[in-house]
Amino acid sequence: MRKTPKIINDPNACAAELLDGLVEAYDGEAKKVGAGSIVMSDLPDGKVALLVGGGSGHEPIYHGLVGSNMADGAACGDIFAAPPPNIVLEATQAVDRGKGVLYLYGNYAGDVMNFDMGAELADDEDIRVETVLIWDDVASAPPERKEDRRGIAGLVLIVKIAGAAASTVDSLDELVRVTTKARDNTRSVGVAVAAGSIPATGEPTFDLAEGMMGVGMGIHGEKGVLVDPLCTADEMAPQLLDIVFGDDLEFGDGDEVILFINSLGATTQMELLILNRALKPLLAAKGIKVYDTVIGDIVTCQEMAGLSVSLLKLDDELKKYWDMPCQSVGYSKM
Amino acid sequence: MRKTPKIINDPNACAAELLDGLVEAYDGEAKKVGAGSIVMSDLPDGKVALLVGGGSGHEPIYHGLVGSNMADGAACGDIFAAPPPNIVLEATQAVDRGKGVLYLYGNYAGDVMNFDMGAELADDEDIRVETVLIWDDVASAPPERKEDRRGIAGLVLIVKIAGAAASTVDSLDELVRVTTKARDNTRSVGVAVAAGSIPATGEPTFDLAEGMMGVGMGIHGEKGVLVDPLCTADEMAPQLLDIVFGDDLEFGDGDEVILFINSLGATTQMELLILNRALKPLLAAKGIKVYDTVIGDIVTCQEMAGLSVSLLKLDDELKKYWDMPCQSVGYSKM
Repeated sequence: MRKTPKIINDPNACAAELLDGLVEAYDGEAKKVGAGSIVMSDLPDGKVALLVGGGSGHEPIYHGLVGSNMADGAACGDIFAAPPPNIVLEATQAVDRGKGVLYLYGNYAGDVMNFDMGAELADDEDIRVETVLIWDDVASAPPERKEDRRGIAGLVLIVKIAGAAASTVDSLDELVRVTTKARDNTRSVGVAVAAGSIPATGEPTFDLAEGMMGVGMGIHGEKGVLVDPLCTADEMAPQLLDIVFGDDLEFGDGDEVILFINSLGATTQMELLILNRALKPLLAAKGIKVYDTVIGDIVTCQEMAGLSVSLLKLDDELKKYWDMPCQSVGYSKM
Repeated sequence: MRKTPKIINDPNACAAELLDGLVEAYDGEAKKVGAGSIVMSDLPDGKVALLVGGGSGHEPIYHGLVGSNMADGAACGDIFAAPPPNIVLEATQAVDRGKGVLYLYGNYAGDVMNFDMGAELADDEDIRVETVLIWDDVASAPPERKEDRRGIAGLVLIVKIAGAAASTVDSLDELVRVTTKARDNTRSVGVAVAAGSIPATGEPTFDLAEGMMGVGMGIHGEKGVLVDPLCTADEMAPQLLDIVFGDDLEFGDGDEVILFINSLGATTQMELLILNRALKPLLAAKGIKVYDTVIGDIVTCQEMAGLSVSLLKLDDELKKYWDMPCQSVGYSKM
C-alpha cells in the first residue's frame, strides 16, 4: 500500500489553511478576500478582470496562478470541491474594475454550476461576467462533444495567455476572443500510474492496479481510454501524441507550439525530462516547431504519479501574449 | 512498502537521457557539451562565468538552473554521483569567456574532489577558476565546522543571486565576493518523512520507520539531528526555525530575508503552503520581514517526501541581484 505521509494540521482544514499560506506567499502582492478568495492587491481602475478558480488540493493551480500578467483573482473551493457561489461573487466583486470579469476555469459540473450561480449574483450587482470553459482533455470525450471534456493541465498555458491579454486589452469582449482562441488551440492528454491520497481520509483518490497505467485518466481518477501495463517513456511518447494528433485540431508542418509536460505530483522532473527527450523528435518529424517548453508540476492531485502532455498552437497574437513576462506562485516567466 | 512507479526507459540510462531532455527543454537557449554538460548557447565575450553542477536525480537542480541571469553551465554527474573531472573541464572550457569561471556547488566529498581535479585541468588550459562551496544545511555540522556542512535547498537562492551577479560584474573576484556573501547569509534545515527510490534498483534511498520524521536529514538520507514521530505543520514550523536561529548567523528585528520552502519531491505544495502559514507569524514575531517567498520543489531526491526551509538574509546589494529577472527550467522570475 503506497501512502505518503503528509505534513499538515487538521486534515479537514487543509483548504482553508493552504489558502492562508498561499496569500502569505505573495508577501503583500495578493490578499485574501471574503470566505475563500485570493485577489491581487493593486488592480488598476479600468482593467479587464480575469478570475479563475476551482477546488483545492491541486496546488499550485488554480489559486497559485494569481499574479502579475496572470489571473487577477481566484475563487477557491474545499479540497476537490467547487467554490460555492458566494465565494465566486466575493471574488468577482473584488477583481471588477468596471470593465467586467472573465471567468476561466475547468469544465467540471460542480464548478460550472457554482460559477454560473456566481455570475447571476454578479449580474444582480451590475457586474458583467463572461465565461470561457477549459476543456483541453482530448481523452475525456470525442471532439463533437467538447462541452463534455474535462479541463486538465493545458489550463496553465491558457491562463498565462489570458492573464497577459487581460493586462493589455480594452474590453471584456476582446479578452473573451483571445482566451477562446487560446482555449480552442490547446489539447492535452494525461496518463496516471498511481493515485494520490485524500488529505482528510488518507484514502487513494482512485484505484489502479500496481504496474498499470491509465491512459487518458483525469486528474481525480476519471475514466480514461485504456488501462495497460506501464510502458517505457519512449513507448509512451508516441502513444500520447497519437491521441492528441487524432483529435480535430490540426498540428502540422510549420506550426509553432508551446509544449507543456506536467507532473501530477510524485512523478519526478527526471521523468518529465526523459519523456521530453522522446517527444521532441516526434514533433520535429511532423515539422512542428516547439517555441517554448514548460516542465513542471503545476496541475497536481496530491502525490498522484503520472503526467500529461499539452500542446498549444500559436499564432502571432498568441505568441505576443506568451512572450510577456509574468509572475505567480505557480508559474513565472522572465 | 511505498513505491512510486517511474516513467523511464533503461533504468541505468536515466542520467544521460534526462540531460538530453533537459537540453531539449531549453529550445535552443542551451546546448549539450561534451559527455555530460549543459551550457547556455550564447554567452557574450568577456562575461564572468558561473558553473554549477553535481549528481543527477535531484531535478531540476543543478542542471535546470542554467539560464538567463542564472548559471552559465552545469557539469552533470550520474544519478547521485559527482560529475567526473573531464566533464567538469569540458563545461569549464565551454563557459569560459576569458574572465575566468566560478565553480558553485554543494559541499559533498565526491563533488569537491572532482571539481578540484577539474579546476587543476582548467589551470593547465590557462583558465582561472575559483570555487565557492554551498554548505547551508545547519543540521549537518556545528557552525565552527562549516566545511563539514552539506549543501541543500538554499543553493537555489545562492545560484539565483550569483547568476544575476555574473551577468553584471566585471571580474571573477567580484563574483566570488558577492557569491560568498550570499552563501554566508543563507541557512537551511530539512525534514524527511519518506524516502525516494533509486531509479536503477527501485530501492529506497534511506530507511525511516513509518510515521516518523527525520529532522535535519540530508537529501540523500544523511543523518540528521533527531528522529521523532511526525508532528503537525504548526509544530514543525517553530522546531525548524529554532534550529536555524540557534546557528551563528543572527536573524533579528528589521532583517529582510528570502524565505524558500522546498519540497523534496512527493510532498505537495498544499503542505508547503500550510507550513508557510505557520512560519510567517513566527518570523514576524522576531521582526523579520520576508522580502520574497519561494515555494516549490526545486531541490528534490526523486519521490522523497519531506521539505526544507531556507532563509537568505538580504542587504541592499543582495536585494539588487535578487530583484533581477531570471529564466531557467528550475526557477524563473519576472
